[in-house]
Amino acid sequence: MRPRLVLFGDSITEQSFASGGWGAALADHFARQADVVLRGFDGYNTRWALKVLDRAMERAAAGGADPAAVTVFFGANDANLPDRSQGHQHVPLAEYQDNLRAICAHFKNKWPSAAIILITPPPIYEPARIRHKYGDNDPSRQPERTNEAAGTYAQACIAVAKELDYPVIDIWTQMQQFPDWQTSALCDGLHFTPFGNKILFDEVLKMLGSIGFSQQSLPSDLPLYHQIDPKDPLKAFEI
Amino acid sequence: MRPRLVLFGDSITEQSFASGGWGAALADHFARQADVVLRGFDGYNTRWALKVLDRAMERAAAGGADPAAVTVFFGANDANLPDRSQGHQHVPLAEYQDNLRAICAHFKNKWPSAAIILITPPPIYEPARIRHKYGDNDPSRQPERTNEAAGTYAQACIAVAKELDYPVIDIWTQMQQFPDWQTSALCDGLHFTPFGNKILFDEVLKMLGSIGFSQQSLPSDLPLYHQIDPKDPLKAFEI
Repeated sequence: MRPRLVLFGDSITEQSFASGGWGAALADHFARQADVVLRGFDGYNTRWALKVLDRAMERAAAGGADPAAVTVFFGANDANLPDRSQGHQHVPLAEYQDNLRAICAHFKNKWPSAAIILITPPPIYEPARIRHKYGDNDPSRQPERTNEAAGTYAQACIAVAKELDYPVIDIWTQMQQFPDWQTSALCDGLHFTPFGNKILFDEVLKMLGSIGFSQQSLPSDLPLYHQIDPKDPLKAFEI
Repeated sequence: MRPRLVLFGDSITEQSFASGGWGAALADHFARQADVVLRGFDGYNTRWALKVLDRAMERAAAGGADPAAVTVFFGANDANLPDRSQGHQHVPLAEYQDNLRAICAHFKNKWPSAAIILITPPPIYEPARIRHKYGDNDPSRQPERTNEAAGTYAQACIAVAKELDYPVIDIWTQMQQFPDWQTSALCDGLHFTPFGNKILFDEVLKMLGSIGFSQQSLPSDLPLYHQIDPKDPLKAFEI
């Protein structure tokens, strides 16, 4: 019985199965060991996520078993500045934290044995956000998100994780360790390039490993090719 | 409730979530509409697949609902020549057809409402197979698979599909329509490049569309961002 990994988040999760995406990379990495379930919702903040939580998770578990782990990756939309073009996505910081707590409590109640992994919002490269929205570098334009605000929400996410004693991936900080992260890791100042996806994939893999969810520790589903004896192949399939 | 699409096959299915893979592309295409379940088994032929069918499909369905569709993509290993290096994977043509019939019957019995889509083995580029195995172009070497044998198995697969009146994707023929398919679509004479993956993805999408499984016809899971009114976002989430 394959364990499941549920990816819950906004567009960065929804797009995670595009070419080079971190979700597809997880599905590929665990291709014979686990099922990866995609539950990404473009544009959603934690307020909206909370509204749909039960419906979003329909069929995310199977056979009565809890998923092994759930990633909760929101904040990029919550951190939109309230007085800018995407202000309707903004969620105040204290509510963002309350919503994260409520989402975690929901999962803990629904799937008591599932590990809940929080992921902070990523860093923001503001000039690319302006270009993305307005198509130029007009200095009079203002980005709808700032890296500073994203960092504040990232810290708030980490604080909730610490309070609940849940693992957290600080992708806001991790990503900024890489040279030219602004354009090497981000394609539009917010979403990920294949390299940015790789950074998150590596972090998720490391985190999963720390809770015992790894290629080494998980059994493979059915005999692997190299375990099948060319001289007596059917032997591998005797139960 | 998202419908499910189950991908059952050999290594070309198992690797379908690697970067640019056809399975990940399906998951991405239907990111808000359907779940794609990966059940690929590297090296397997239909004889071995039949041995593991029940166990392989554990947790592939969920909540008592049949998957909407299952792809059955075997034959590349069955078509190994019996007297060559991978002879232990070979399955005689008549048995290959019997096994396909048995696999289809199993799915029809298990999931009566699921559409079963057969996929033929792909074409083979023999010089690349020799290079892959022996690391050179030694003319005394013989490939373990030939394109001719793959074509024979492809025809046999199509015959079974016609007999059962199931849809079939003739990827052996389709792929060979493309210029330089030997190296543009195949990376090692057998497995797919991103371009080869795209060819199969397009064919699967077309086939799914013909049975009413398409972006246009499937409902989206929860409100899409563009359906959310910036002036009253929560309205979209009232049940």
